Amino acid sequence: MPSRRVTIAEIAASAGVSVPTVSKVLNGRADVSETTRKRVQQIMVDRGYQRRAAGAQRPVGLIDMVVPGLDSPWVVDVLRGAESEARKVGSQIVLTSAEGAPAGDRRWLDRLASRRSDGLVLVVSEAAPEAVEQLRALHTPVVLLDPVGGSDPSFPTVGATNWAGGLSAVEHLVSLGHRRIAALSGPPQLACSQERVEGYRAALGRADIAVDERLVRFTEFTTSGGLAGARAVLDAPDPPTAIFAGSDMQAFGVFHEAAARGLRIPEDLSVVGFDDVTFSALATPPLTTVRQPLTRMAAEAVRILLDADDASPGPPPRVELATHLVVRGSTGPVRR
Amino acid sequence: MPSRRVTIAEIAASAGVSVPTVSKVLNGRADVSETTRKRVQQIMVDRGYQRRAAGAQRPVGLIDMVVPGLDSPWVVDVLRGAESEARKVGSQIVLTSAEGAPAGDRRWLDRLASRRSDGLVLVVSEAAPEAVEQLRALHTPVVLLDPVGGSDPSFPTVGATNWAGGLSAVEHLVSLGHRRIAALSGPPQLACSQERVEGYRAALGRADIAVDERLVRFTEFTTSGGLAGARAVLDAPDPPTAIFAGSDMQAFGVFHEAAARGLRIPEDLSVVGFDDVTFSALATPPLTTVRQPLTRMAAEAVRILLDADDASPGPPPRVELATHLVVRGSTGPVRR
Repeated sequence: MPSRRVTIAEIAASAGVSVPTVSKVLNGRADVSETTRKRVQQIMVDRGYQRRAAGAQRPVGLIDMVVPGLDSPWVVDVLRGAESEARKVGSQIVLTSAEGAPAGDRRWLDRLASRRSDGLVLVVSEAAPEAVEQLRALHTPVVLLDPVGGSDPSFPTVGATNWAGGLSAVEHLVSLGHRRIAALSGPPQLACSQERVEGYRAALGRADIAVDERLVRFTEFTTSGGLAGARAVLDAPDPPTAIFAGSDMQAFGVFHEAAARGLRIPEDLSVVGFDDVTFSALATPPLTTVRQPLTRMAAEAVRILLDADDASPGPPPRVELATHLVVRGSTGPVRR
Repeated sequence: MPSRRVTIAEIAASAGVSVPTVSKVLNGRADVSETTRKRVQQIMVDRGYQRRAAGAQRPVGLIDMVVPGLDSPWVVDVLRGAESEARKVGSQIVLTSAEGAPAGDRRWLDRLASRRSDGLVLVVSEAAPEAVEQLRALHTPVVLLDPVGGSDPSFPTVGATNWAGGLSAVEHLVSLGHRRIAALSGPPQLACSQERVEGYRAALGRADIAVDERLVRFTEFTTSGGLAGARAVLDAPDPPTAIFAGSDMQAFGVFHEAAARGLRIPEDLSVVGFDDVTFSALATPPLTTVRQPLTRMAAEAVRILLDADDASPGPPPRVELATHLVVRGSTGPVRR
């Protein structure tokens, strides 16, 4: 039996304040004391208060975006897509870096609650469970961009086709005659790490090549992760002639390990990356890679956010934009 | 004779509205009609209204940052520095990309005026003259980050030591025995383009090497600019053994032109860049470059903004943070 909707008057009564004060808290007005605001918010969370649909409110022109950090080269692609889409409707992006912590610490949420936001795009980041609860209470629309695993099915999500990307990368290597192909990927608990490797397995299976588990390494999606992974697989008894790296940064680590061993790319070793960050086309040799449409993905996340309306029935959408292989100079025919 | 300060009451009288309405406009409240808000703002501009010092107002926790575009790899370094410094005081960065246009178009300014901002960092961008005027009227503190030339001396500015950077790059090449050294730089109307080349001239002068003007090229700070510049100087009758590029992107263009000609780096050609973007350490070979402390520069700009107080006498500060040479694998002894 669905519970009756809690009213503002009931919140006000519980908090021992006036209805206009609750209204001020809801509208992010500054003329409410910190203590009162927190008490009212807590009661809204406890009583499961549902604000009226976001579409019914006047937008403030600010869209919050939480990125896991500002040290990876693909972040700028994501920001470009989001900023440009927001600009089309006269909105701006408010940037927060989670710096490795789960998105939405207490202080950040309080700030969001005190000033209003048209919505929140969480990038490759899991929101802390209490944050998710409070975001619901504040009735702030949330869209997840490429969550790295265990995505919360109650939020709309934009991702890329990781499995198909891994498949296309390895099918390309197979078509060049490679049969000893290694796969590097990110942390095994991330869905995208697993999906890219599953694409690799599928491509080998289609070519009737048995998977040699010594050539599959889950490491970090970083250059040093790629370096360590390359070292491990190139030290195998029957080393690979090609490496599919789970990210471009890993691929650059492979470039360095190859240079250290005197292996030429692509003559002695073919390398495929994943992402197509700005620099990949500029590397020497230019990197063959699976392009993630990061800019389009971010734009799509903002669009879903602006269209958000809780009244819509059914589960929130999960959109996967297609990856595609960009063939450049780092892959070539296997050396006989 | 300094004019008397205009009061809110006088603004209200001129606009035919109440004092509380003017106050609402000043505080970015939403409950003022668009027409009234614009009329009041225009009168504030016309009468030269000076808001009380920013420090005296309660901060809103939002710092606006206008970047020229989100397609260059160094932008993320700037954002990292600004976001991290803002986060220390519980503030957030509101991101706007000027996309090649002078910062601060009408719509953007109206938005800024309607919601309040603790200040504005303009990155390598000139503000439109009418924007400068309105920013003054709104009493929003402004800090320029590395303006690209003709900087407005009425705003505090954070830059880097371009001249000293060019000098250190070319002194390094001279110390490796190079005497035929080319210089590529950006558009000649930008101060930083000129300053980097002046540093190059100074280093050659100190080593008693005459400048060959055919080896100095002003082009774009992009990869294709570097490619074109490299082509021009390598086609000279007595081609250079080393190239100082005015940006890392240019240096990557030089890498490509060298590869196309079968020139090995650094055995046949030494290359120095300028910026030290994230990727430069990962290039093959890793790029020797002049490091601009972009992250620290952005943090410094935010710090100056938060400390802003118009009451301070004297001209606004201009801060230049030191560049320093990072020697990696793209430079080596001249080949005899």
